[in-house]
Amino acid sequence: MQDPPASADGPVVAVDCNGADLGPGEVAAGAALAAARGARVILFGPAGELGDPASGVEIVDAPVSIAKSADPASAVRANPDASIVQAARAVASGRAQALVCAGGTGAALAAGLFNIKRTRGIYRPALALPLPVPGGPVTLLDVGANAVVRREHLVQFAFMGAALSSTVLGVARPRVGLLSNGEEQGRGSPLVLEAHAELLERAGSGDAFEFVGNVEGGDVTSGIADVVVTDGFTGNIALKLMEGVSQTILGAVRNAATSSTRGKLGGLLLRGALGGFRAEIDPELQGGAYLLGLRRLGVVPHGRFSRTGFAEAIMRAERGAREDIVGRTERALAEAGALREAPVSAAGASLRET
Amino acid sequence: MQDPPASADGPVVAVDCNGADLGPGEVAAGAALAAARGARVILFGPAGELGDPASGVEIVDAPVSIAKSADPASAVRANPDASIVQAARAVASGRAQALVCAGGTGAALAAGLFNIKRTRGIYRPALALPLPVPGGPVTLLDVGANAVVRREHLVQFAFMGAALSSTVLGVARPRVGLLSNGEEQGRGSPLVLEAHAELLERAGSGDAFEFVGNVEGGDVTSGIADVVVTDGFTGNIALKLMEGVSQTILGAVRNAATSSTRGKLGGLLLRGALGGFRAEIDPELQGGAYLLGLRRLGVVPHGRFSRTGFAEAIMRAERGAREDIVGRTERALAEAGALREAPVSAAGASLRET
Repeated sequence: MQDPPASADGPVVAVDCNGADLGPGEVAAGAALAAARGARVILFGPAGELGDPASGVEIVDAPVSIAKSADPASAVRANPDASIVQAARAVASGRAQALVCAGGTGAALAAGLFNIKRTRGIYRPALALPLPVPGGPVTLLDVGANAVVRREHLVQFAFMGAALSSTVLGVARPRVGLLSNGEEQGRGSPLVLEAHAELLERAGSGDAFEFVGNVEGGDVTSGIADVVVTDGFTGNIALKLMEGVSQTILGAVRNAATSSTRGKLGGLLLRGALGGFRAEIDPELQGGAYLLGLRRLGVVPHGRFSRTGFAEAIMRAERGAREDIVGRTERALAEAGALREAPVSAAGASLRET
Repeated sequence: MQDPPASADGPVVAVDCNGADLGPGEVAAGAALAAARGARVILFGPAGELGDPASGVEIVDAPVSIAKSADPASAVRANPDASIVQAARAVASGRAQALVCAGGTGAALAAGLFNIKRTRGIYRPALALPLPVPGGPVTLLDVGANAVVRREHLVQFAFMGAALSSTVLGVARPRVGLLSNGEEQGRGSPLVLEAHAELLERAGSGDAFEFVGNVEGGDVTSGIADVVVTDGFTGNIALKLMEGVSQTILGAVRNAATSSTRGKLGGLLLRGALGGFRAEIDPELQGGAYLLGLRRLGVVPHGRFSRTGFAEAIMRAERGAREDIVGRTERALAEAGALREAPVSAAGASLRET
C-alpha cells in the first residue's frame, strides 16, 4: 500500500451503499451514472435492494449496516461483515483505490482507521470540503471527523488543507486562516490561541502556505483565505449552517418569484442567471468532503444526497485517486516538516474521542 | 437598583459612542434619529465629534476609548474615565436605565460587570440575538460574550433564552435546542454532552421551555427550535457566518439581476418582493443583540452599523427597559429554579476567561 495505485483501467472505487437517506438503491443508481462516465465501482450493500449492476459496477452483498451506530468504533470491531468494513477492507487490500461512504461518517472513519490506516505521521484524519465561493473555492476543514481536537491536530489540518488546495485546486501558496470569534490574535478559545501561536511560528519558516491569522465566520465566504481551519465540532456546525442559510434565502427568492404575476415574470427572466448560481452552490454537485489522512482517499457525501450527488462523490473519489491526492498531500507535509515524527502506534487510540 | 425603573418620561439610554467603525459621529446621528422617535439618550464620547445634541439627547464629553483593547477587564480598571465605563456608571447610578455600546463587546461586558453588576444568581451574562427566520424569530445565544463556558453556563443560557423568547417575543413555551455536530444525544463535544444531560433532566421538571435536544447548524434557520443555545465562540462564528452567507447569496442574486437586459428587467420586477425580505434579514434593522444577565439591560449593535442600526439599537434598549426584560427574565429564572443559589462573590472572577 505504499505506492500510488497503477492500473491501465484507472482506479476502482469501493462504495458503501448503507446509510443513505433515500436507501441503498439510490446509491446504486448514482454508481450507474458514474459508471456511464467511465468510473469502475464495487458496491457494498444489500444486493436485493441494489438492482442489476450497471456495466463497470460490481455488487458485493453486504446487508449489515452500522451507519447509524452511536459507537462506530465498537460497531466496526463487532461487525467485520458490515458493508462499510468490507468496503474499507477492499481498499486496504488493493482491490479498490478509494472509498466512498453514503452515510455514517463515524463508521467510515472508524472502518478506515482500522483497515486502511492512517498515513504515517498524520495525527488525525480530517474531512475537508472545498466550498464554492465567489472568487474560488475555500477549503474548510475539519467539517466533522473530530469533535474534539488538540493544538497539534489543528496545526496539521492547516498543512493538510493547504496541500489539498495547492495540489487539487491549483492555489500556488494558499492563504490559511484559523476560524475564531474575532480576527485579533488574542481572540478565541484557549485551543485557538495555542494553535495560532504555533501556526505563526511554523508558517513563517516555510512556503507551504501563508498564515493569515484568525478569520471570523463572515470571512469564510469573503475570499480572504483559501483554507479555513477549525475543529470538527465547529466545522460541522458551520457547514450545515451555511447550507441551511443558503436554502432559506434561495427559498425566499423563490417565494418572491411566485408571489405575484409580476414576481413570476421577474423570476422567469432571472431563472437562467440564477440557475447557474444555484448549481454552483449545490452541495450535490460538489460530491462531498475529502476524507484526508488515510493511506487511501475517502470521499464522504451527505447521507441525504440523491443519485446525482452519489455519482459526483464517486467521480470525485475516482479523480482523486487518479491524481494521487494522498501521495501528494503526504509529500507536501513531509517537505514542510509537518508530519508527526514518532510512529503512530495504534489507530484505536484516537478513536475514543472521535 | 432592585426595582424596575419608573419614570413618567420613560427610560433613558446611555450610549457609548466609541468603537463604531464609522466613528462616534455616526452613533450621534443614530441617537438623533432615535430621539426623533421619542427616545431619551445620553451620549458618551468625544464631544468634538458628536455635533450639537438633538432634542432629547445629552452629551457627556468622554474622549477616552477602550473599545479596541485586547484586555478589556484591565482596560476598564485602568480607565475609569473611558466612555464605556462612564456610560455603565450612568446606568448603575440610575441616571440611565439601559446601556448601548457601539463597539467593543469585551469592554461593554467588563464595564457592565464591574459597574452594573450581574443579576443575583446569574453565572455569566450572555449575548442573545433574535434572528429573523421564516416562521418567527429564533433566539441564538451566546453570540459572543463568553468564548469559554461550562456546563452550568449553557444550562442557564437555555433558561435565559427561553425567558427572552417568552417575555419579549411572545412564545408561550419556547422549544430550546442545543447546537451540536449531530442531532443524536451522543453527538457533540464533552461540554455539549454534559449540558444535554442536565437540560434533559431540568426541562422535564418544569414548564419554562421544551428541550428539543441537539440541533444541527442547518436547524438554526429551519424553525424546529425557538431558542438555540451554544457557547460564545461557536455562537459568534455561527452569527457572522450567517451574515456572510446571506450577503454572498444576495450579492449573487443582485449580480444575476444586473448581468443582462433580461436579468435587469427580472430584477426590477422582483425588487418589491425581494426588498421586503432583504429588510427582514438586515442586521441593522434588528438593532443588535441583547446583553442579558446584568441588573440593567444592555444592547450591543455591530460596530459596523450605520446610524440606522444605532437608532434601532437605542430603540431596542428603550423598549426593553420599558418592558422590564431584566426583571421578567429574572423572575422567570427564579420560578424555574434556574438561578445560582450561592451568592456571586465578585464580578472579576469570571472576567479572566471572557
